[in-house]
Amino acid sequence: MMLDGMIKTDLKIISTGNGSVMHGIKKQDNGFMGFGEMYNSTVEYGAIKAWKLHRRMTLNLIVPIGKVLFCFFDLRKGSKTFNRSYKIILSQNPYFRLTVPSEIWFGFKGLHEELNMITNVANISHDPKELMRKELHEIEMDWSVV
Amino acid sequence: MMLDGMIKTDLKIISTGNGSVMHGIKKQDNGFMGFGEMYNSTVEYGAIKAWKLHRRMTLNLIVPIGKVLFCFFDLRKGSKTFNRSYKIILSQNPYFRLTVPSEIWFGFKGLHEELNMITNVANISHDPKELMRKELHEIEMDWSVV
Repeated sequence: MMLDGMIKTDLKIISTGNGSVMHGIKKQDNGFMGFGEMYNSTVEYGAIKAWKLHRRMTLNLIVPIGKVLFCFFDLRKGSKTFNRSYKIILSQNPYFRLTVPSEIWFGFKGLHEELNMITNVANISHDPKELMRKELHEIEMDWSVV
Repeated sequence: MMLDGMIKTDLKIISTGNGSVMHGIKKQDNGFMGFGEMYNSTVEYGAIKAWKLHRRMTLNLIVPIGKVLFCFFDLRKGSKTFNRSYKIILSQNPYFRLTVPSEIWFGFKGLHEELNMITNVANISHDPKELMRKELHEIEMDWSVV
């Protein structure tokens, strides 16, 4: 079960003969919470980046290149999924967007041996004051892909 | 010389040890004209996609993967660069964003032998009614990279 407030939206990849168009997010889409910033992150094969929590940022994540395991942990008081974790793999097959509400702990791991790229369309611009971090060992998680 | 109204903005790629953060666009950035849609296009090595013109869409283009030649042609009445063309290569080195006003004809060609990906952060969502096309031969252009 996804964590309370998360949304998974299937996206299309349209072949154009000599390339493709890969949908991302439109302003009228479910999960769009306003535009603050679009940026990409890359993560090497086998590397884990964890943990982060945004106090105000809603994430809209897609993985246009490679394959990335995302792990989430819910410590939100009053959440229907309090104290639960959730794991999901983002890639191009299946290709979808994952909307992640603020206040959820998250981390990710590169699963493809070549490039792994994550695009985030966020409702606010980068602000170090709203970003919290924990060390990897501070939240227990099985990072293997079962 | 760039065409009237085009903006080139240098962007940062920040190494994080086991990956990187690649800046895209923030709402307070020069060239940001509102958010309508973010999507990616890919183009195969040597393939040319041309020509298109958007009546209302301002493009904000980055190339996070590969290397892409963009060609532009200005048929805007009253433009300071009327009847001129402009060619530029987008890649990660140098890594920058190119803002393209509406009403400019454009096309692009994949230059990298592997994946070439273009990200567009547009001020409006896809609308076939505002998109115009010409066949490749209808605008004369030297698509070689000199």
